[in-house]
Amino acid sequence: MDESRQIAGWKDKVLFTPGPLTTSRTVKQAMLRDLGSRDFAFIHLVKEIRQRLLALGGVAQGEYEAILMQGSGTFGIEAVISSTIPPEGKLLVIINGAYGKRMHHIATTLKIKTATLEYPENRTPDLQEIETTLATDTTITDVAVVHCETTTGIINPVSEIGTMVKRYGRRYIVDAMSSFGAVPLHLARCGIDYLVSSANKCIEGVPGFSFVLAKRDSLLATEGYARSVSLDLLAQWKGLEANGQFRFTPPTHALLAFHQALLELEEEGGVEARAARYRANYETLIKGMRAMGFQEYLRPEDQGYIITSFRYPSHPKFSFEEFYRRLNQRGYVIYPGKVSDADCFRIGHIGRIFPSDVRDLLAAIREVLAEMEVKL
Amino acid sequence: MDESRQIAGWKDKVLFTPGPLTTSRTVKQAMLRDLGSRDFAFIHLVKEIRQRLLALGGVAQGEYEAILMQGSGTFGIEAVISSTIPPEGKLLVIINGAYGKRMHHIATTLKIKTATLEYPENRTPDLQEIETTLATDTTITDVAVVHCETTTGIINPVSEIGTMVKRYGRRYIVDAMSSFGAVPLHLARCGIDYLVSSANKCIEGVPGFSFVLAKRDSLLATEGYARSVSLDLLAQWKGLEANGQFRFTPPTHALLAFHQALLELEEEGGVEARAARYRANYETLIKGMRAMGFQEYLRPEDQGYIITSFRYPSHPKFSFEEFYRRLNQRGYVIYPGKVSDADCFRIGHIGRIFPSDVRDLLAAIREVLAEMEVKL
Repeated sequence: MDESRQIAGWKDKVLFTPGPLTTSRTVKQAMLRDLGSRDFAFIHLVKEIRQRLLALGGVAQGEYEAILMQGSGTFGIEAVISSTIPPEGKLLVIINGAYGKRMHHIATTLKIKTATLEYPENRTPDLQEIETTLATDTTITDVAVVHCETTTGIINPVSEIGTMVKRYGRRYIVDAMSSFGAVPLHLARCGIDYLVSSANKCIEGVPGFSFVLAKRDSLLATEGYARSVSLDLLAQWKGLEANGQFRFTPPTHALLAFHQALLELEEEGGVEARAARYRANYETLIKGMRAMGFQEYLRPEDQGYIITSFRYPSHPKFSFEEFYRRLNQRGYVIYPGKVSDADCFRIGHIGRIFPSDVRDLLAAIREVLAEMEVKL
Repeated sequence: MDESRQIAGWKDKVLFTPGPLTTSRTVKQAMLRDLGSRDFAFIHLVKEIRQRLLALGGVAQGEYEAILMQGSGTFGIEAVISSTIPPEGKLLVIINGAYGKRMHHIATTLKIKTATLEYPENRTPDLQEIETTLATDTTITDVAVVHCETTTGIINPVSEIGTMVKRYGRRYIVDAMSSFGAVPLHLARCGIDYLVSSANKCIEGVPGFSFVLAKRDSLLATEGYARSVSLDLLAQWKGLEANGQFRFTPPTHALLAFHQALLELEEEGGVEARAARYRANYETLIKGMRAMGFQEYLRPEDQGYIITSFRYPSHPKFSFEEFYRRLNQRGYVIYPGKVSDADCFRIGHIGRIFPSDVRDLLAAIREVLAEMEVKL
């Protein structure tokens, strides 16, 4: 249990959500400053953040470039789609959840030609069908997929898909929002042209910006493609390169927090150590939930250690709203409502939480079920 | 001098910039929490922020609606332009500085038809010419202007322009980025359909989002106009109305800070009291600068109390880069570089700064000029 949750007289609830997450006290304290967004100190901070992001992706500067973009993760996704698909391009979106659907919605809103391959949200995409589609539809220029679909917690085979996308000479966009920093991923080996993630996920910063790791030669070829000024990825990169500054006001405090979060990720032991902690959270959770009689929605082999979906108990006295509210009163916030098509609720196990926090949550769930007289 | 600048062992520089600004210790401390973005507590916070923004604009809910948008102020501007100009609409942009030009750039990037009326950056727009344009070009559907052009600090006659825009039955967009909260403005009386401002300006929050005050009936008529998903103003409003939540992850910490900043604005005495403090900062500054021999760029009658442009001294030993660096070393950050076409530098007098801070800055400027052997 982190002492930050008791600072200044309140005890914050623990967040078992897909983000914003519970962050460390020291990450939040890094925001107790006001830096000028065009001042030396801030320019240095941004430079270091960008370098550390490339290192986390296992790539060298020059080969890849790190671009920070104001707004939530979706803004980063839209920045990539709106800035990098050629005017006559066609985006194949591989969908097995709400975030895949959102990429498709963004592309169609931008009047970009699209193709889709849609799968049940509890199944990974059909690799054979993807290959056939790439072989058949030669008008497809770009392919997009979500790494960890937060809708269910399923982990998609981004490496296998990437190998095919490269074999067919297409560009490859990966939404790694809720996986980057905790699920090891080597961008170059996966053939990724654009990876998008966000400040408030596995790096454990606070929300306020997203970031894109872009293959340099792909990025440089996008001149004139941008369909937006705010979300112009190439212009954003050029600005950062020219003088180290953002074109438009950056969220200085969120960047201070993120810098601290990157230092703490390194202190913890990097991506592997973080993965181990999240996996321990996940294993503690499913062991406890199974013991109570809950069932996971996904097959274990498709399930990541980021967020887990559990089926609603079939007991007539179970009401999710009531379950959520009672956990909330006890200081535990799970995701309020469902995104999935199935009757499931989700519990996230990322952020500054530890197996001891998960055990506290499990105890609270047991109490709430007893109060509600729900037997599993 | 606010004690927050000495917290935790460092002394932050004082920001005399157009933003991000120096904020109060308590505004920053409000960020020492992690709230779930879909949790009750956060939903309540967002609701109160939206209500207080409408009150600051002197308008009632129902007549106007407050919409928060992730990203910097420019994202809010692009949200309005991209979401509210009809497909066959035409935007007249009245320009006398970089921010007017930026609105035009956004509209043309979005392939929206535009007309422009451009004026020197040290002159207010020609009202007679605006009227003639509105009377002549009946294809113009929307008019946009900047209230305080931060390029120079000039205050544009938004009320007079608004009266004309309404007389000719057009919609009216005002970029009040650096004025809202400190320059009294009654939206309804000015005929404003969309006012855009940002968290990190005169309300003295931290950067991370912008906000739009939208005339309700105008907003409701924009169904289907949006050219972006992330920046879809109507969808963002509908989301906030439906369940009090943002569609996509909000900058929870920046919103916590902003809520505190709104409370502190009220405690200070509201817009009038803040205006009085900023005006005192401004008057202290120009008195001291004039005494040293500096000249303002604008005519006093066009000059606001937000930010002031001063002409570079003509002395051969004056170098702005050197001047900036030496002030910076002493702990005073002014805007590093110029946006204006003229050889000017800018000093902002907004944020959590007081006349005593301005006097400290003036003393530092005197020292720096002496060191540089610049005589005015």
